[in-house]
Amino acid sequence: MVSIQNTPAAGSDPLRVFIDGRECNCIAVTERGLHYGDGLFETVLLRHGRLCQWQRHCNRLIHGAQRLGIPMPDIAQLVAEMTEIAHGSENGILKLILTRGSGGRGYRPPPAPTPHRLLFLYPLPPAPAQSWQTGVIVRYCHTPASVNPALAGIKHLNRLDAVLARREWSDPTISEGLMCDALGNVIGGTMTNLFVWDGERLRTPPVNRSGITGTRRALTIELAAKFGIDCIESALTPTDLECATGLFLTNAINGVWPVRDLAGQHYALEALPWSLLNAIVLASHTPD
Amino acid sequence: MVSIQNTPAAGSDPLRVFIDGRECNCIAVTERGLHYGDGLFETVLLRHGRLCQWQRHCNRLIHGAQRLGIPMPDIAQLVAEMTEIAHGSENGILKLILTRGSGGRGYRPPPAPTPHRLLFLYPLPPAPAQSWQTGVIVRYCHTPASVNPALAGIKHLNRLDAVLARREWSDPTISEGLMCDALGNVIGGTMTNLFVWDGERLRTPPVNRSGITGTRRALTIELAAKFGIDCIESALTPTDLECATGLFLTNAINGVWPVRDLAGQHYALEALPWSLLNAIVLASHTPD
Repeated sequence: MVSIQNTPAAGSDPLRVFIDGRECNCIAVTERGLHYGDGLFETVLLRHGRLCQWQRHCNRLIHGAQRLGIPMPDIAQLVAEMTEIAHGSENGILKLILTRGSGGRGYRPPPAPTPHRLLFLYPLPPAPAQSWQTGVIVRYCHTPASVNPALAGIKHLNRLDAVLARREWSDPTISEGLMCDALGNVIGGTMTNLFVWDGERLRTPPVNRSGITGTRRALTIELAAKFGIDCIESALTPTDLECATGLFLTNAINGVWPVRDLAGQHYALEALPWSLLNAIVLASHTPD
Repeated sequence: MVSIQNTPAAGSDPLRVFIDGRECNCIAVTERGLHYGDGLFETVLLRHGRLCQWQRHCNRLIHGAQRLGIPMPDIAQLVAEMTEIAHGSENGILKLILTRGSGGRGYRPPPAPTPHRLLFLYPLPPAPAQSWQTGVIVRYCHTPASVNPALAGIKHLNRLDAVLARREWSDPTISEGLMCDALGNVIGGTMTNLFVWDGERLRTPPVNRSGITGTRRALTIELAAKFGIDCIESALTPTDLECATGLFLTNAINGVWPVRDLAGQHYALEALPWSLLNAIVLASHTPD
């Protein structure tokens, strides 16, 4: 088995698991999260014993729960449980799953569901500091990103497109794969958002038909404004990426990944707006 | 709480549950079926203690497992377990879920997964004989059907589009809702395939970008050929449905539902090709 560097350990064995506040390692087989992917998740970075950018994760969860019609758990209680599960860990990854729970007849949800909150504490994989300095190698995936305006943006549990895309390569030197929709628009990485730099401004794919509203995507857009750098949402094709000065990827665990190679094309890392990138990484890894 | 008629009880409490051949009611929280919807399912009608159209379900499962790269369980063993869980039940619904199991790092599946097979025995809801005779009332859903050529056709666990669509109505007189993709093409019902009759031939939406290759859809196409009725796959818009002579819906539990009303438009049931419809229902409800 090939070992994978530079990827979060979100799928390796969790150190601890809580369901609804209690240590637990199994869930009811009638769970709608299993039957239909009827739920949401967040992957939160834990640094120095504290949650990084929690407010952005929490806001996205609230928005997703509203879109799916899943009652939100009490946030203070959720934070207390996250603090409890993380107790004694300096660094790690906290994965939170919110499901609609059991019940209903077929696809139809019960009118008053009893949602479940699942918390997983994972070890933080060795810091990929090298990726930050030397940039990462990226490929295109053949698997298209799913398109659905009613589901786009939120971090729901219907992630088979990313699973099939991530299954396309096992070369550990390739850190990420870019996914396009069936029309050929680039949507983002399997687990990252994409930013394209043309030397003056940033462009990033919209997330209203496909893709996820990444917490570090939102952070990047905000910080770019503070740095006086235009950042616009724009449909992007592989040709646009070929013509770009530079590319970088963002996510909650890795912060920023500068791209040094996409599908064989080299990008000069020094052309990227490093003062902005430094600010994103700093904010990304700083507890609230 | 409004009670729902005319819908399968697939979401109500199961009478029995087997996981990998053993009576069980919970599953590991690390299950990829829960985290990503990484799996497949089949909903098989049990009549007179026997599985109806099992071969079609089995073929679709094999095809889906191949598409997702999930190793197929031994089919003889699976059938033995289905026979065991159904033992003593005359009629019912057997839901089979095949997941990729636990493990992997994030979206990336483990190279040699240990899939799990979950079997659920549900009671058969009261026979909706009335729907067959008098036709059903159908609406349009606002929730678009997800589009992904890599996932279309197979019965995977990423079903949030159908969940949100089914959540749009609670009126028990409405039996089904039709879903369109974001471009406005009709894909099918939340849990049924659609056939459009123009007095001479049948049309049904293709399932290569969205939708599911229904077992009774395949049966209908085969039987139509035997009856000398042309049946073609064709992109269909709501306008095409307005101009149609008649409509009917198919699924594994209900067989055929003639549509008497769609979004306020009345369809004369007597205009439908009843000899074909009768043959579909007969074959649909007949054990292999």
